[in-house]
Amino acid sequence: MSTVTNIKKTVSGEMELFEKKFRSSLKSSAPLLDKITHYIIKRKGKQVRPLFVFLTAKLTGKVTDSTYNAAALIELLHTATLVHDDVVDDAYERRGFFSLNALWKNKIAVLVGDYLLSRGLLLSIDRGEFDLLRLVSNAVKEMSEGELRQIEKTRKLNITEEVYFEIIRQKTATLIAACCASGGASNGSDQKTIDKLYKMGELTGIAFQIKDDLFDYGAGSKIGKPTGIDIKEKKMTLPLIYALNNANQSTRKKLIYIIKNKNNDNKKVSEVIDYVNSSGGIEYAAQKMNAYADEAKEILMEFPENEARQSLFNLIDYTIKRVK
Amino acid sequence: MSTVTNIKKTVSGEMELFEKKFRSSLKSSAPLLDKITHYIIKRKGKQVRPLFVFLTAKLTGKVTDSTYNAAALIELLHTATLVHDDVVDDAYERRGFFSLNALWKNKIAVLVGDYLLSRGLLLSIDRGEFDLLRLVSNAVKEMSEGELRQIEKTRKLNITEEVYFEIIRQKTATLIAACCASGGASNGSDQKTIDKLYKMGELTGIAFQIKDDLFDYGAGSKIGKPTGIDIKEKKMTLPLIYALNNANQSTRKKLIYIIKNKNNDNKKVSEVIDYVNSSGGIEYAAQKMNAYADEAKEILMEFPENEARQSLFNLIDYTIKRVK
Repeated sequence: MSTVTNIKKTVSGEMELFEKKFRSSLKSSAPLLDKITHYIIKRKGKQVRPLFVFLTAKLTGKVTDSTYNAAALIELLHTATLVHDDVVDDAYERRGFFSLNALWKNKIAVLVGDYLLSRGLLLSIDRGEFDLLRLVSNAVKEMSEGELRQIEKTRKLNITEEVYFEIIRQKTATLIAACCASGGASNGSDQKTIDKLYKMGELTGIAFQIKDDLFDYGAGSKIGKPTGIDIKEKKMTLPLIYALNNANQSTRKKLIYIIKNKNNDNKKVSEVIDYVNSSGGIEYAAQKMNAYADEAKEILMEFPENEARQSLFNLIDYTIKRVK
Repeated sequence: MSTVTNIKKTVSGEMELFEKKFRSSLKSSAPLLDKITHYIIKRKGKQVRPLFVFLTAKLTGKVTDSTYNAAALIELLHTATLVHDDVVDDAYERRGFFSLNALWKNKIAVLVGDYLLSRGLLLSIDRGEFDLLRLVSNAVKEMSEGELRQIEKTRKLNITEEVYFEIIRQKTATLIAACCASGGASNGSDQKTIDKLYKMGELTGIAFQIKDDLFDYGAGSKIGKPTGIDIKEKKMTLPLIYALNNANQSTRKKLIYIIKNKNNDNKKVSEVIDYVNSSGGIEYAAQKMNAYADEAKEILMEFPENEARQSLFNLIDYTIKRVK
């Protein structure tokens, strides 16, 4: 499997310049904001999203100024949602650093998220990038709606497979779809091409989220052990949904009883995980994940061969083979 | 003094139709969201912001479809920031209802705020209202930056009068300025007119915030008694800044010592309030407030007379004479 570092090589110059531009776009006149954005830059992730933007632009033509702008807006938006997620998840740690939430509390996290998002929007408005604005505003809407739907379903424990896919499409796939579509749009690709790229990104995003959900059951993760966090938070994901659908009524009742319990110890959570494993829930979810990734690759392969196509192939592959 | 209900009469048909459109624009496919937006509509405030939009449109020409769109986007944004403020302020009560925060917790408040904002943005993008988008995105940026700056200054207790005015311009006046400018822009007014309306709104917004800050000292409020909340939260507003600037060093030290104390009882807070009163801080702030409102009215009076002009005059007057 290619690593992200390897995949980045195709657009290494672009990614470097992007990073520079991104940093300077975060500058603010308020010292507190500067301190926080400095901290955000330090804990930056793998930058998979800008990578999708640059690679889809190269797949379909040239990287332009608009490509940089799209990558910056999407990374700003992604950072804003991570900051807001710190509130949403009550997360105390994120990527090994303390979360903004823990360090500066909820109020600042919310304000910084709003600030980053509006900075990104202004950049694009000033440049007249309205297609990009639509893609990104739609992504924000879908993401927040998807998260809210998940919270609702989590309370009621009545999520179906169909609803699960709709939620992960909204909360995760829409943004990767926007990355791919805006990469294409940034060099003037026609609408049909942009739509294809959107679909490719959406399918990849769904596979990406199933992979994340599998980690909770220890499947394919670096640590190799289940974390069981989703179960403790009553978040029902594909492996569990499948297992419940295929359990007899008394087993189903027993599992739901455990999941509903507020004070689950690790032993109880292990019972659920073991059942999900033995019922084939992990396998089923992995199959689905692979099918989505394959469908994304099929769309990709309709594009003429070039270096970016190979890198995108590896990037889609990475989303389902990564170990963390 | 005219009441808001009276002022609304000039645009009563428009405000009614706006309300209908606004409600339907909040509809969502997620039941939880629908429940929350229903709740938001129920606790709606005086809708001063849409009122500024419609009245400035009528002042300068006709109310158009774009006027409705501007009013809806700004009210969505304002609602989104109120929802986010519930997190920011840790407020447990707002306008007599329980805050969203208390009822559904921080995470939902953040997501609903994001959702409302993106819905508003999409509406305007779909309609190609790019001037409006710029005004509104800029307002979001200024508001979050202003709030963050206030938090920073609150910690350090070193706010100057100049910084105070910059903060309230950012956090409060920018949005009212955007209301007035977008009202003018919605019927195709020229840039010079739009700029004048922006300035008028900004001045009004500054006066509006000074009025709010005066309430904390009991000045001009319905309840007639100081609440002292700002002092307890170490928020230094104009009356206190003036008082500290004009205190001798030992008094200044003593006051700062009280304000810094984490567990201030009402007696200690009263000491500060009494000093602010006796030092002329209330009077000074009220004078400044009146001067800003007067300047706003002067700009207003440069427009030709019509019914909307009189209503706007009354609305500016209302912002400084209201009792809550």
